Amino acid sequence: MTFPTYFETFDARQMLEDYPVGEAFVDRYTRMSRDELHALQNARFLKVMKRGWEIPFYQRLWGEKGIEPGDIRSLEDIVKLPVYDKSDLMASVNTHPPYGDFDGRGDTPVIFHTTSGTTGRPQPLMFGPKGREITNLLVGRMYRWMGLGRNDVVQSVYGHGMINGGHYIREAVTHYTNSLFLSAGTGIETRSVNQVHLMADFGVTCMVGFVDYIRKLAEVAEAEKLFDRINLRMIIGHLGTEDRASTEKAWRGAKAYDWYGVGDTGTIAGEGPDRDGLYVWEDAQYLELLDIDGGTAVAPGATGDMVVTCLFKDDIAPCIRFNTHDITEEIIGANQTGMVFRRISGFKGRSDNMVKLRGINIFPHAIGAMIENRVDLTGEFICHVTRDAGGRDEMLVILETRGGTDETEIAALLRKGIGIEVGIRLVGAGDTAAETQIDTRQKPIRLIDRRGL
Amino acid sequence: MTFPTYFETFDARQMLEDYPVGEAFVDRYTRMSRDELHALQNARFLKVMKRGWEIPFYQRLWGEKGIEPGDIRSLEDIVKLPVYDKSDLMASVNTHPPYGDFDGRGDTPVIFHTTSGTTGRPQPLMFGPKGREITNLLVGRMYRWMGLGRNDVVQSVYGHGMINGGHYIREAVTHYTNSLFLSAGTGIETRSVNQVHLMADFGVTCMVGFVDYIRKLAEVAEAEKLFDRINLRMIIGHLGTEDRASTEKAWRGAKAYDWYGVGDTGTIAGEGPDRDGLYVWEDAQYLELLDIDGGTAVAPGATGDMVVTCLFKDDIAPCIRFNTHDITEEIIGANQTGMVFRRISGFKGRSDNMVKLRGINIFPHAIGAMIENRVDLTGEFICHVTRDAGGRDEMLVILETRGGTDETEIAALLRKGIGIEVGIRLVGAGDTAAETQIDTRQKPIRLIDRRGL
Repeated sequence: MTFPTYFETFDARQMLEDYPVGEAFVDRYTRMSRDELHALQNARFLKVMKRGWEIPFYQRLWGEKGIEPGDIRSLEDIVKLPVYDKSDLMASVNTHPPYGDFDGRGDTPVIFHTTSGTTGRPQPLMFGPKGREITNLLVGRMYRWMGLGRNDVVQSVYGHGMINGGHYIREAVTHYTNSLFLSAGTGIETRSVNQVHLMADFGVTCMVGFVDYIRKLAEVAEAEKLFDRINLRMIIGHLGTEDRASTEKAWRGAKAYDWYGVGDTGTIAGEGPDRDGLYVWEDAQYLELLDIDGGTAVAPGATGDMVVTCLFKDDIAPCIRFNTHDITEEIIGANQTGMVFRRISGFKGRSDNMVKLRGINIFPHAIGAMIENRVDLTGEFICHVTRDAGGRDEMLVILETRGGTDETEIAALLRKGIGIEVGIRLVGAGDTAAETQIDTRQKPIRLIDRRGL
Repeated sequence: MTFPTYFETFDARQMLEDYPVGEAFVDRYTRMSRDELHALQNARFLKVMKRGWEIPFYQRLWGEKGIEPGDIRSLEDIVKLPVYDKSDLMASVNTHPPYGDFDGRGDTPVIFHTTSGTTGRPQPLMFGPKGREITNLLVGRMYRWMGLGRNDVVQSVYGHGMINGGHYIREAVTHYTNSLFLSAGTGIETRSVNQVHLMADFGVTCMVGFVDYIRKLAEVAEAEKLFDRINLRMIIGHLGTEDRASTEKAWRGAKAYDWYGVGDTGTIAGEGPDRDGLYVWEDAQYLELLDIDGGTAVAPGATGDMVVTCLFKDDIAPCIRFNTHDITEEIIGANQTGMVFRRISGFKGRSDNMVKLRGINIFPHAIGAMIENRVDLTGEFICHVTRDAGGRDEMLVILETRGGTDETEIAALLRKGIGIEVGIRLVGAGDTAAETQIDTRQKPIRLIDRRGL
């Protein structure tokens, strides 16, 4: 029996024309008008919709709302479609185990991963060769626009195994940037001491991964006395609302770059060389910001859930109005690069991790930014939310101090940043690690919600 | 600055014509004569030699022997070239840190890994896109010939991180087999309990990796009571001289397939559907079996060091007469499949791990095959070699028993298999683990040489 290999199922040169990288990328999207971009998005969206109607998951999702193919004639009609989220994907997996019915696999090869950190059955992530390579390309293109060059040496601390992260970034860098790539993985795959020796031995100029761990490696490099042999110039990760400055300081002036994406979609937005907001890759991703409660578009500049439609995934597992439950806001006004794309301010927290205290929405992750740059604090913290007998919710913020911290001053700082009074408890360096699980999780926990207990 | 991406640096369709997979592979090499094969090898060899002369490592290696380009006019002249091994590569790394001078990197992207288990500086492994994809293709082609089909679900327990193994096999399966691939990785990346649940949940039909760990997973599946939900039909790994039968029995009749390769070369030989010896992929690898001491070709059927020239690696890091120090012998006589390729009997031990006792060469790994299929033994063992005051060497074989083993009977069995008397000590199940390091190493240690102490 013969069947097409990975390389025979898509046309790599056509892909690079449709989704240019490097100079061709900058050239095209600094010349394109919003109207031209919209036309491109519309054409790609209609192709994705056609594929969506062939997938049982969408047939059911849309059919239940009485939607018919003819109802969606252009991108403007997208608001007629329901959003979905991970709970819908997991329901699909539970009724159609183990893969769910959202992939539409056919004769082509499939790239298969599972998402980490979920309980119960893992959520499958599936890509066709074309969808996969464009997902990779978008990261490579982004890294290059940030300034990554062919002479850079990139060390990745994204994990491997069943999860997608490390494999995805490895493909992105090796296929689209020409930088040398070291797939070190997490501290479990390559011990932290070995990580910093790799950086020194192989002249690593750029670290990519979750910045919590990259910051921790700076302490290891210090202990190993390797700073005079390491010349790191870039850190590309997920700063979210947390400490760009502390990451850059830890690595003595390396520039940190932020981007945002989830496993189901790939990169959605990332900083450019100007590091002034995250550009949404609008030729590939259609991003809506929707009101957390109402589900309609928020006013320009207001905070909303990021709901994403991948305009390029028309092969396997299309992604049409996927609610990430991550929130952000649009940055209004002209950018400095001339790119046609809109910008967002990056990950501002999770709407399903949002805590409402006396009418105010609080995102625990945002506390990271409020306490950065303080030498007396380690930057590590955990929030506890409790409900008293009278039904009143309270939040306690537990922060790690290196000593000499004035509790009253911190309380005032957080009151100013959050908008209301929260409880404060100071603990020693490392004392939140058991709750945040920073040593074993790539994304540390910042909220423990005890209201249901 | 623009430069070619991975996909632009080689022609995937041309590669698939030059190195066919699936039916086209069987078709071509069951029709080809030895003369035609030799002509193909010769043409490819001359191309590789041309590239070799551009690489400083070979210029030095060959130049020191007074060899000039005109001296090597055909594959017959290959015997004029010196062999080299890992120690030469490491010397190159030490004088030209950190990459050595054997890669010949240019403008194209590089796939970069390091080998595991070495002390001191890691040995870099480098591939150009073309060389890498052919390396991948050879594994995919081999798996398919063994019987892996598009409906199979493959779980890999090869490790990731900096080492090549897991990444290489993932590329091979996803790019060239169309089977669904689960990159579970080692027990550190995906805990053993989760590994067997993945097997059950996703209908895994084929396990690939080192068989020591795959056998161990059978015990975990038993403990988790998952055997009625697992339908494993193939195990593709490295049986070497160890226990095909015990692996198949542990997995209740799944068929085990053997292959051989090292990181620097990719797969060199593998079993076919007949499982009657390992076919050397002679369109891609030129394999010589050389006398361990003399360095000249051994007589047909005699044991020798495997020395490999990769006929396809003419882009980055050519591999010309690399001595693996792994030994095997050719299987003489016609095969059952009609393939034009020669066969070898597989990995028979390492010549640098060989122990010479009273004139007899002993390969500790070979003991595995002698003790397999015994219910009283676990199959785990470790050999100690010591030298007494009189300069006489002795070997003690420590074997794990489940109880009821007759020491005299085992001594006789090993005397028969090895050819001379060795000491025997029986220990409990698991008691050799500290020395073999089976829980943390992918290839357990079988020899502890104490003669130098």
